[in-house]
Amino acid sequence: MEDLITMLERTPATIRTLMEDLPADLLHADEGEGTFSPFDVLGHLIQGELDDWVPRAQWMLEHGPAVTLPPFDRFAHVERSRGRGLDDLLTEFEELRAAGLTTLREILAAGADLETRGRHPELGEVTLAQLIATWAMHDLNHIAQIVRVVAHQFEPDVGPWREYLPILRGR
Amino acid sequence: MEDLITMLERTPATIRTLMEDLPADLLHADEGEGTFSPFDVLGHLIQGELDDWVPRAQWMLEHGPAVTLPPFDRFAHVERSRGRGLDDLLTEFEELRAAGLTTLREILAAGADLETRGRHPELGEVTLAQLIATWAMHDLNHIAQIVRVVAHQFEPDVGPWREYLPILRGR
Repeated sequence: MEDLITMLERTPATIRTLMEDLPADLLHADEGEGTFSPFDVLGHLIQGELDDWVPRAQWMLEHGPAVTLPPFDRFAHVERSRGRGLDDLLTEFEELRAAGLTTLREILAAGADLETRGRHPELGEVTLAQLIATWAMHDLNHIAQIVRVVAHQFEPDVGPWREYLPILRGR
Repeated sequence: MEDLITMLERTPATIRTLMEDLPADLLHADEGEGTFSPFDVLGHLIQGELDDWVPRAQWMLEHGPAVTLPPFDRFAHVERSRGRGLDDLLTEFEELRAAGLTTLREILAAGADLETRGRHPELGEVTLAQLIATWAMHDLNHIAQIVRVVAHQFEPDVGPWREYLPILRGR
């Protein structure tokens, strides 16, 4: 659990390092209709802090599996991020993540049972421990996505070396 | 070209943020025989600074396609990194990358033709521009690899959420 919390703490710094100096065309590049650009990913991570991870942990502790977890809107960030600056969003993510981890630590210090169950709207029964691990893995999933989307934009530039770069083949 | 240089400059900070607090079991986890752990990746990136990117750029400018580029040993880092501490390697990578980019800027300021050709030992003719783009994409490829290897170690912990996390399926 401490490893997961350390990883969760690090994510805003990683995202900032990857995104801070990206030129606009890379920031808004995506992998086709319905896929996320790096800018979208950042908005989606913010939305997760607001609606997904800690709120769902609190919901599970309050209701157990009796009341289904509220659904998470994977596209709510589109409206919420529109027109906002990158630095504004990076700072908001840092602040929300720090606050969320403070709450998580309070939950754990209060002796919450990590095997507390909840009911996911699509996946069925899940546990608090799984929710926390998924929070951290969801970060890694989207960090890899940012890196992959940026790499794809340079695919024409590497010439024959493409063969040695699995990331350019979506791997 | 400026975008590529900015990305190349950022990589040591990204690698440090991703690896600095990793516990030993994650630092040395890999994806099976012959694959790289995060610790291996860092050694491999250092080896690239020493033997691959800038040395090959200089070779191309000196010899053109007439003399094949020296081969790069993808496993030379194993001996070179053995027994060394993480912070030592992170610092070495930072210093080598900064020095390499200084040399690259000198090469470009001296008016090097980006279409200068070289002969890769396996891939045939390549250009200086392709070499520089590949240098930056090689970073992204290995950043994604570090993230993926770490994520895989937590696969059992996310339970049913696995389905929503393509990174756990090697994507």
